[in-house]
Amino acid sequence: MKIRVTVWNEFRHEKVNENIARIYPEGIHGAIASYLGKFDDFEVKTATLDEPEHGLTDDVLNNTDVLIWWGHVAHREVKDEIVDKIHKRVLCGMGLIALHSAHLSKIFVKLMGTSCTLKWREAEEKERLWTVEPGHPIAGGIGEYIELPHEEMYGERFDIPAPDELVFIGWFPGGEVFRSGCCFNRGHGKVFYFQPGHETYPTYHNPEILKVIKNAVVWAKPVKTIRELTCPNVKPLEKI
Amino acid sequence: MKIRVTVWNEFRHEKVNENIARIYPEGIHGAIASYLGKFDDFEVKTATLDEPEHGLTDDVLNNTDVLIWWGHVAHREVKDEIVDKIHKRVLCGMGLIALHSAHLSKIFVKLMGTSCTLKWREAEEKERLWTVEPGHPIAGGIGEYIELPHEEMYGERFDIPAPDELVFIGWFPGGEVFRSGCCFNRGHGKVFYFQPGHETYPTYHNPEILKVIKNAVVWAKPVKTIRELTCPNVKPLEKI
Amino acid sequence: MKIRVTVWNEFRHEKVNENIARIYPEGIHGAIASYLGKFDDFEVKTATLDEPEHGLTDDVLNNTDVLIWWGHVAHREVKDEIVDKIHKRVLCGMGLIALHSAHLSKIFVKLMGTSCTLKWREAEEKERLWTVEPGHPIAGGIGEYIELPHEEMYGERFDIPAPDELVFIGWFPGGEVFRSGCCFNRGHGKVFYFQPGHETYPTYHNPEILKVIKNAVVWAKPVKTIRELTCPNVKPLEKI
Amino acid sequence: MKIRVTVWNEFRHEKVNENIARIYPEGIHGAIASYLGKFDDFEVKTATLDEPEHGLTDDVLNNTDVLIWWGHVAHREVKDEIVDKIHKRVLCGMGLIALHSAHLSKIFVKLMGTSCTLKWREAEEKERLWTVEPGHPIAGGIGEYIELPHEEMYGERFDIPAPDELVFIGWFPGGEVFRSGCCFNRGHGKVFYFQPGHETYPTYHNPEILKVIKNAVVWAKPVKTIRELTCPNVKPLEKI
Repeated sequence: MKIRVTVWNEFRHEKVNENIARIYPEGIHGAIASYLGKFDDFEVKTATLDEPEHGLTDDVLNNTDVLIWWGHVAHREVKDEIVDKIHKRVLCGMGLIALHSAHLSKIFVKLMGTSCTLKWREAEEKERLWTVEPGHPIAGGIGEYIELPHEEMYGERFDIPAPDELVFIGWFPGGEVFRSGCCFNRGHGKVFYFQPGHETYPTYHNPEILKVIKNAVVWAKPVKTIRELTCPNVKPLEKI
Repeated sequence: MKIRVTVWNEFRHEKVNENIARIYPEGIHGAIASYLGKFDDFEVKTATLDEPEHGLTDDVLNNTDVLIWWGHVAHREVKDEIVDKIHKRVLCGMGLIALHSAHLSKIFVKLMGTSCTLKWREAEEKERLWTVEPGHPIAGGIGEYIELPHEEMYGERFDIPAPDELVFIGWFPGGEVFRSGCCFNRGHGKVFYFQPGHETYPTYHNPEILKVIKNAVVWAKPVKTIRELTCPNVKPLEKI
Repeated sequence: MKIRVTVWNEFRHEKVNENIARIYPEGIHGAIASYLGKFDDFEVKTATLDEPEHGLTDDVLNNTDVLIWWGHVAHREVKDEIVDKIHKRVLCGMGLIALHSAHLSKIFVKLMGTSCTLKWREAEEKERLWTVEPGHPIAGGIGEYIELPHEEMYGERFDIPAPDELVFIGWFPGGEVFRSGCCFNRGHGKVFYFQPGHETYPTYHNPEILKVIKNAVVWAKPVKTIRELTCPNVKPLEKI
Repeated sequence: MKIRVTVWNEFRHEKVNENIARIYPEGIHGAIASYLGKFDDFEVKTATLDEPEHGLTDDVLNNTDVLIWWGHVAHREVKDEIVDKIHKRVLCGMGLIALHSAHLSKIFVKLMGTSCTLKWREAEEKERLWTVEPGHPIAGGIGEYIELPHEEMYGERFDIPAPDELVFIGWFPGGEVFRSGCCFNRGHGKVFYFQPGHETYPTYHNPEILKVIKNAVVWAKPVKTIRELTCPNVKPLEKI
């Protein structure tokens, strides 16, 4: 059965900035969706902020196995009621992949329970992403490290709960490190945070970055999906 | 330096139910505060829901190292703005000990990012709390298990993120198990969830349960306290 | 590509005890191998203690993706040099599933670094295995719990490192609990410990137990296999 | 009650290399012991490889709360029987702090169960150690990072089990990162691995490095000490 992926993008930078539009003529969502769409394993849709309900109707959410999220300047414009629905869907089994500046998206912050703050700098810096858990499925096909010629620096301390599994650590020439690939189990769902992907660089055209995203989709697909989160009063299973 | 502890209690059951009032004539907060107050290590205050600002003014919160929380029927009456202040204080370093039905308190749920639902049953059942991490400071002075003659059953699946350290697992005769003593690091703060403590049983008079709470206070005291959670744009530390 | 599974069994009880032989006429290895062999996904072999090199020649090990291990009375007869080879193979990527009394097998103890001791009792007791991580692939297709009419009691404290993921907790009527389904990442390999499976009960004929083992095989298949574990002196990647 | 610390050092480099002897005239053990000895909280002894039983008689081990270990060129000369005794003592409650090249010491490797291999380079490089868990007691009094003008580069992938708590990540100008401050719970004991400390640099004279070691000693002190690791056959606690 195909994994049903919805790639969500704020889709604002691409509309107002020519350089960014040149890098991502179909939007960041378009670049990622186009890559995933090449594989038979996935059924790929996209959704963006300015669509009705941000493109995330009940029907879309209920038919999404893994949601990929890119947002940056408009986190606050995402409606709380939609965030609550996504949150519930993750706890009920849907996977979530939060990319780059989605560290401050409402949905990621809500799932983490922490501020998700970090240090940052835009300086055309190189990044080297070290694989610290090479046996993890998200690292499949990736070597000792991924090198990106230009990426925004994200530095520690990253205010997240310790990830359930830490797959990648980023290195920056300016002197910082970052927990760049982090797995979290939340409810019945799986969450992967992946740091690279600043809008002014062609990160989502990089074959290794795309492979990590693809691996993460497969890893995050639901094992068990439930409908409701309940707190039931139960009878004893044994005589007491 | 003394650890400044604030014991917070919803303090509703004790006012309306004679049996509960008999068990906790000074309230659940009173029982815990009175125990901790015997030790020179602590400076103990109490606060309750029906006080102005729930007894948790900025001044109180800013001078609390570890906050103990008991709530049950009135979680919704706790004001969001107070919850937000507590949340920020935990991320900035304050410890939090969430007792029993506080699994559904706004502050605990917000810190976890999950639903914190579970199974439950009130049936005068025995509970046996097994120490699975005997080297953890919270288990100091506790043997292989703690036996409680009567406790409310709380059963899996408990919808929490996997605890950073799992110290106790509860056993119930009706056939359930529960992750009953769970440590979480959140921001600069430490959070301990401890399951025993239903209001109709004298659990907070049990010397071993009280010892666990005392240990947890010591464990949860702040290592480093900060004022603000920021996301700074930083200069490189090295030439790039 | 098929996952190459080798099911290893000490295979002693079945030869000397009629009751056990009646439950497992083809040996415990035979029961598990016969189940896995029904699926196209696996290529299944077996190996036993009394074969030359315990059936685990270099050729067998190098062509095994996941090794399943059952041992009990003869742990000491397993040669250290074979254990060292298996150990290296796990660190280089091979999966290992340690069943029941394999908690004291040389290979499991070596991988854990702890004593792996526990409490035990043979008393025809029921066991209920609670799924605490329902979103984990090893729990796929399993409900809230698995009930076994008879199983050997294994109780805490189980002296293992905290598992990287705790999937199942066992409940026993005699009053004990046990971390029964434990995932560990070790080197490039994955290790799953699964507690049920005493030789005098037909546990490995139980469809849910078999499903967990099948899930564990899929989970434990290598992501990346290396040849050698080295500690290289490396040149800088950047000008220093 | 004072924490009884034994600082163990291979103590070979200091005897044959003038430069190293100049940095550590009393040996690396002497430098660390002299620092810890200034505090009333500790009772400090030292022990070295070339003493009888490596200075670690039963009496010494049984009266050590926390053992600090530095070794490098002579790991193989440490007798297996002594390693086994230390290993048992850790599982029974003694703390262990493994420094720098002790990543390949027999005792650390045995406790980890993995190869503990890594990348390395001696190039007079700077190191910056980032605090990723500022609320951890081992980070007490340490700022956002510690900067060392010269340290041996240790780089990922470091073949250890994922630490129970990751406190520091190291950054090197040559392009590498390293999980430099790692906490592990093993048996009743606590283990802290701390990467800085190459013999040719005055790392153990650095006040922040010394503070981390001091914090680690306090963190690693035993909570509960047992005598034997047993696997008992137990009677049911409840009627079955």
